[in-house]
Amino acid sequence: MVSPSSVDDLEAERLARLTLSLVFEPGDPRAAKLCAEVGARELVDRLRSDRAAADIKTDAGTRLPYVQPERDLERAAVMGLRFVIPDDPEWPAWLDGLAAAPPLAERGGVPLGLWVRGRRRLDEVGRALAIVGSRAATTYGTDTAARIAGTVAQGGWSVISGGAYGVDQAAHRGSMGVGGTTVAVMAHGLDRTYPAGHVDLVDAIAERGLVVSELAPGSAPTRIRFLARNRLIAAFAQGSVVVEAKVRSGALNTANWTGRLHRPVMGVPGPVTSAFSAGVHALLRTGAATLVTSGEEVLEVVGRVGEHMLAEPRAPERARDRLTVRLQQVLDAVPIGRPTSTDGVARTAGIGIVEARRGLDKLEQHGLVSSADGGWRLTDAALTH
Amino acid sequence: MVSPSSVDDLEAERLARLTLSLVFEPGDPRAAKLCAEVGARELVDRLRSDRAAADIKTDAGTRLPYVQPERDLERAAVMGLRFVIPDDPEWPAWLDGLAAAPPLAERGGVPLGLWVRGRRRLDEVGRALAIVGSRAATTYGTDTAARIAGTVAQGGWSVISGGAYGVDQAAHRGSMGVGGTTVAVMAHGLDRTYPAGHVDLVDAIAERGLVVSELAPGSAPTRIRFLARNRLIAAFAQGSVVVEAKVRSGALNTANWTGRLHRPVMGVPGPVTSAFSAGVHALLRTGAATLVTSGEEVLEVVGRVGEHMLAEPRAPERARDRLTVRLQQVLDAVPIGRPTSTDGVARTAGIGIVEARRGLDKLEQHGLVSSADGGWRLTDAALTH
Repeated sequence: MVSPSSVDDLEAERLARLTLSLVFEPGDPRAAKLCAEVGARELVDRLRSDRAAADIKTDAGTRLPYVQPERDLERAAVMGLRFVIPDDPEWPAWLDGLAAAPPLAERGGVPLGLWVRGRRRLDEVGRALAIVGSRAATTYGTDTAARIAGTVAQGGWSVISGGAYGVDQAAHRGSMGVGGTTVAVMAHGLDRTYPAGHVDLVDAIAERGLVVSELAPGSAPTRIRFLARNRLIAAFAQGSVVVEAKVRSGALNTANWTGRLHRPVMGVPGPVTSAFSAGVHALLRTGAATLVTSGEEVLEVVGRVGEHMLAEPRAPERARDRLTVRLQQVLDAVPIGRPTSTDGVARTAGIGIVEARRGLDKLEQHGLVSSADGGWRLTDAALTH
Repeated sequence: MVSPSSVDDLEAERLARLTLSLVFEPGDPRAAKLCAEVGARELVDRLRSDRAAADIKTDAGTRLPYVQPERDLERAAVMGLRFVIPDDPEWPAWLDGLAAAPPLAERGGVPLGLWVRGRRRLDEVGRALAIVGSRAATTYGTDTAARIAGTVAQGGWSVISGGAYGVDQAAHRGSMGVGGTTVAVMAHGLDRTYPAGHVDLVDAIAERGLVVSELAPGSAPTRIRFLARNRLIAAFAQGSVVVEAKVRSGALNTANWTGRLHRPVMGVPGPVTSAFSAGVHALLRTGAATLVTSGEEVLEVVGRVGEHMLAEPRAPERARDRLTVRLQQVLDAVPIGRPTSTDGVARTAGIGIVEARRGLDKLEQHGLVSSADGGWRLTDAALTH
């Protein structure tokens, strides 16, 4: 990559990268690779002067005569959109991890640039988690996504998702509900909103966080654009949480990208009777994902060592639980009904009378037995615990 | 262990082992170890003649004067119960795995003998799976336990459980419902039934399978007897499935025993909002258990290689899924509305016109586009898939 020595250089680089992003489908690994090898401006020159390899030249030739990057930038600025490139100070370094990840479904590579809507800088996103899942999620899925998003947001983590119905929407809302930063990565141009019903949600995200896309204004979403987009959701985050996913779900593609970036994939289990959890269960079964049940557990997986110390879930400790097995054996030998002699307790417990007596004395100190009425009996405390 | 050379020897061994099992609490690892080292009859002699180590002699001394093994055997025979020992031909070899497993909660070791109710031989149990979980299970838990039990039973596997309410009961019933063999391992004497409401269930199990206990008739269940019993549930099975369990649940003790026997532990996930799945999720999170969602998956985990081949869950394949990414790219470029020229498709797809035309021809063969009315359009098949 050629480092720009002036503002003019930076803007020339921006126009070249925008040109390439208008010519190639997002996530075309050939474009990213050539751009990294020879630089964006040289690649545009080669394509224009017929010096590029046959396959890429043929593909680029169909769109190259029609692109108008300057006009696109002007129009986008009016809509509050900017096109950010790797040479810009706000470019987040962690996206460059995509350069080393092998392609998936023929998509891959560092994006040529990113269209951004929102006042915050891209690198302000900081530590972030992707929370993804079904559009047609159940209320279990959306409730769980919102709860996890709220917890990680309170822990200072941004939440990345795809701005869709279902889990995506719940994740964005869960983050914003506690004042967190959230980023929606879209598979279409930011001059429009899909689904149309999400205009208010996307406006709110742009207000407090960021809306991002590889695609220029005017671009419609397609299947391969969703596949390309998923790698960006994964790359923006230090780990991904799949909340609900059927066995064929785009969320699993995002999880796959997270694995390719060597970042942790997490999955939220659900009822085995729910088709919306079947895709997550498959991830967990193969070991591709770690099971998480709460935002605290998510932070434990991605957090720095010791930063998010998590106590394993425990039931409240009962007096009985503090007893040794031998003392338990003595306690079990004290009948519920009529009082019994020390000898009777020893025989029932199957231990010597001296140890039995010592045990009964200790149990009396714990308030679990009493020796009134000429024999040993369980106390109310022992019976209710 | 002394191998008996005659029927008299076998019966002397049986009486000695019964004596020891009446003197020591079940799963006392000292008794199992000494019995394996010096033989049951020699150990009884040593306890009777004061030649045993002080700790074990003191414990044994409280009960030894009162035991009446011959009388117990006679009375039990009337009730249809037999006391089976390792020298009996029906002793299942796989219980001996307990000899090498380290104690847990001070319980452990091969049982001295087993009380059995039922007409089948102990070793007829054959390949078996333990299915365990909460007594107070939800309907999700009991439905899932019954379904998994039914599937593994149809696969020829016996189902082992503890005869309790909830998951245990559902597992036994699920097995019997498809004509499977099931074994209930109890923590009390087989002259009685806990819970009392399970008389019919336990009768049915004894009729078609087996009811088993380490404890002599007349013995009540206690906490440490449940802990000792759990190791037998694990030892009878080639693997354990935990269906629902709170974070402090006896089912987790059974899972722990299964791990100590180096046999697979499996866990059924559930909603993260259910306390009854929290114990299972903890097992899955630590990697102590493998996630399973069906009986087929259970069989895949425990089955011999290739015996239970399991196809990963898949959604039905659609015509689009068979397309290459490049063909998909062409298909995505064909608009839903008015027909478009090949040149238009090529420009929208961002690929050369020659390849675009070749792609459109292939898509027409697949029935996804048609070239009527002077241009390309999507077919109904493409729109509905």
